[in-house]
Amino acid sequence: MTEHCLWRFSRALHRAINDRQREDLLDEDVDWAIYGPIDMFPFLGARRGKAAVVEVITQIADNVRVHRFDREKIMLGADSAASMMRYTLTALDSNKPISLRLAHFAQFKAGLLVSIRVLVDTFDLVEQTLGHPIHLPKIAS
Amino acid sequence: MTEHCLWRFSRALHRAINDRQREDLLDEDVDWAIYGPIDMFPFLGARRGKAAVVEVITQIADNVRVHRFDREKIMLGADSAASMMRYTLTALDSNKPISLRLAHFAQFKAGLLVSIRVLVDTFDLVEQTLGHPIHLPKIAS
Repeated sequence: MTEHCLWRFSRALHRAINDRQREDLLDEDVDWAIYGPIDMFPFLGARRGKAAVVEVITQIADNVRVHRFDREKIMLGADSAASMMRYTLTALDSNKPISLRLAHFAQFKAGLLVSIRVLVDTFDLVEQTLGHPIHLPKIAS
Repeated sequence: MTEHCLWRFSRALHRAINDRQREDLLDEDVDWAIYGPIDMFPFLGARRGKAAVVEVITQIADNVRVHRFDREKIMLGADSAASMMRYTLTALDSNKPISLRLAHFAQFKAGLLVSIRVLVDTFDLVEQTLGHPIHLPKIAS
């Protein structure tokens, strides 16, 4: 049984972020989105095409370093994968540790990424980045 | 081919929230978590066991009404499912519309839910609930 594309993609992405190694992991027409507040984090949001995604991965590499990740949930299809993951990162500008939960849905073609959607627990991310809690009213009955 | 458990669970959950209909959809020992700021939304967070989950679904029903949901991504396993979804809700106290993206990973046993983990784009949720944007500094280079 050959290795699922997800594992190669995951290793290549982490090497791209931490070591700036570039490997061929993206389809020319890749469709990429990480949902979140782009005013605070300009490297979040949607990108289309290999050049734009290579650029945004470089921007992510300029801002964070990945220390550890745990895949809490995973589902694999023939050319698709979804995971819920917990990341431990360092924000490079402040040297602050950030612990982050995210979910991704990815689609591959011929071993290359053609589509990924990433959802992040963004409020938690914002509070950790600010370094202090945001006061919230209690809304529920 | 029989219907996947996800569809029955999804219908039953939406009926429980909107119409307070109770159907047997939970395993006795169900493990439930919706990650998010529980100070603002006490019906988020972790629950264990059928009674606690029935109670939290009632709390959710006290606070929101589901108008519409679109499954943007889905993966189905034999007894498991993951989706990325976009919900249109009304917050019942303020009558405010809320549009929400979430991802869930669910596990079923004998047709009943045994485990679910839900990740929400929480910053977007908080801003929509407050009704105004939270000012954020731009952090990235």
